[in-house]
Amino acid sequence: MKTILFSLPGNEVLTELLATKMKAEVGQATMRKFPDGESYTRILSEVKDKCVVLVCTLHEPDEKLLPLYFLSHTAKSLGATCTCLIAPYLAYMRQDKVFNEGEGITSGFFGKLISGFADSMTTVDPHLHRISALSEVYHIPNKVIRAADAISDWIKENVEYPVLIGPDSESEQWVSEVAKNANAPFTVLQKVRHGDRDVEVSVPDVEKYKNATPVLVDDIISTARTMIETVQHLKMAGMKPPICVGIHAVFSGNAYQDLLDSGVQKIVTCNTIPHPSNAIDLSDILAKEVKELMPHI
Amino acid sequence: MKTILFSLPGNEVLTELLATKMKAEVGQATMRKFPDGESYTRILSEVKDKCVVLVCTLHEPDEKLLPLYFLSHTAKSLGATCTCLIAPYLAYMRQDKVFNEGEGITSGFFGKLISGFADSMTTVDPHLHRISALSEVYHIPNKVIRAADAISDWIKENVEYPVLIGPDSESEQWVSEVAKNANAPFTVLQKVRHGDRDVEVSVPDVEKYKNATPVLVDDIISTARTMIETVQHLKMAGMKPPICVGIHAVFSGNAYQDLLDSGVQKIVTCNTIPHPSNAIDLSDILAKEVKELMPHI
Repeated sequence: MKTILFSLPGNEVLTELLATKMKAEVGQATMRKFPDGESYTRILSEVKDKCVVLVCTLHEPDEKLLPLYFLSHTAKSLGATCTCLIAPYLAYMRQDKVFNEGEGITSGFFGKLISGFADSMTTVDPHLHRISALSEVYHIPNKVIRAADAISDWIKENVEYPVLIGPDSESEQWVSEVAKNANAPFTVLQKVRHGDRDVEVSVPDVEKYKNATPVLVDDIISTARTMIETVQHLKMAGMKPPICVGIHAVFSGNAYQDLLDSGVQKIVTCNTIPHPSNAIDLSDILAKEVKELMPHI
Repeated sequence: MKTILFSLPGNEVLTELLATKMKAEVGQATMRKFPDGESYTRILSEVKDKCVVLVCTLHEPDEKLLPLYFLSHTAKSLGATCTCLIAPYLAYMRQDKVFNEGEGITSGFFGKLISGFADSMTTVDPHLHRISALSEVYHIPNKVIRAADAISDWIKENVEYPVLIGPDSESEQWVSEVAKNANAPFTVLQKVRHGDRDVEVSVPDVEKYKNATPVLVDDIISTARTMIETVQHLKMAGMKPPICVGIHAVFSGNAYQDLLDSGVQKIVTCNTIPHPSNAIDLSDILAKEVKELMPHI
């Protein structure tokens, strides 16, 4: 079966990369707003009997949902065999339980909505906390891509003497994996609590790594507050300015500039959300894995 | 069964009016955005075993859809018996057929989406063209409220010597109904086509109405182009500055100011979309009719 990819507005670069690697066509569509704020959708390429791949990262999801929903339904109405969603960044993964009485579990509601119009879903490192598998909220074939190996490769190629830094004990498992594949040492910041507001943070083995380049790794950089705090601790411990690596460049408000100004050497992200900091390309692994979810007729 | 109304952001005034007239409670909810653009939903009032009415006009619908969807699901997860949507202005009624190959029929797609999470839908004069009944696209109990009588009443109370004006022959049926109930005469602009670009527009019986106040009536004022054009024709015919009445104050871009500047006496709309021009209150008829759709246990 033939595959045709469509970029939702803003996803054009990744869509072209994926199409090349999947040896597939990029479809043409008109998606615009009427003066009254309603969306207009028109597919200009032939989609009949084809597998349609919709590329739509779901950062700032509210205004993206209807255009995506309309494009999927329009493709189906024109005879597409299936619509496979690639959402490199997946929204609504954090509200996965009732923290305060009366709250809605939006991760489940959102999953149900997407599962109602897409036939499969591929994403990169979703923020899984209490939800241990994406299948708990997405009742369609789905695949989680891990960015760890691509990050390790980038560190090997770009940082001469790296030491990976985890901001807290929770990050140890993740940081140790990236460090291992990058053949680099790692250390995890330690917090000793002396009282409610008196927390002492120390960098273990700091003397050993005085000449190394610290590399901080996190999944989502949103407000960047955790990362900025960690940068301050490394500075106080006398380490070199660090490189900050995030998978998802969410960067709400002035977070990107604030992190740049905090004394980092560089900020690097994966291309799951288009952003000037994108330097780690995941299109190889995405192109490979998305095919696994397609119907094989 | 007890009824509780919730206002989606921006619908507070109408919600309070409806609650008073329905002798029902207004529920409290927290609806805000996280810094990364995701929506947060929390219902603070008791909704268990109650009929929940969601008041959400659907002008500029794309960003409103998810908060509405989340609030409905949250209410259900907290034990609400039903969620009844009041959308005084209903979006996506114009793309009701494939005008150009490849287009999506968004009226149907949108109707399917709303029908998937709301148990009933009440709206005011939706833009029905090729769709003759709302039930063709909304597969839930639904009710269309007509604003005509409220408009007639407003004209009777506020305009001393009115003459109703229809911009074209299509509007005759509608304008004649409003005129009849307002005990006012009406006339419809006539177009004589001399060639592709040579269209002569005349106002019949213009001499008869030189001292009357022209009242233009339309369902949606969006770009206001039709209305501004009609105002020019009346001016050229030597009539007084007209009063423009619209049901739905969509007013895209600078349309409101442009229409004000075109030489009108006044612009008046119904309160289906909150706007400074709102002067005709439909809460009485909405409160009365929405009850008809509620489950009676």
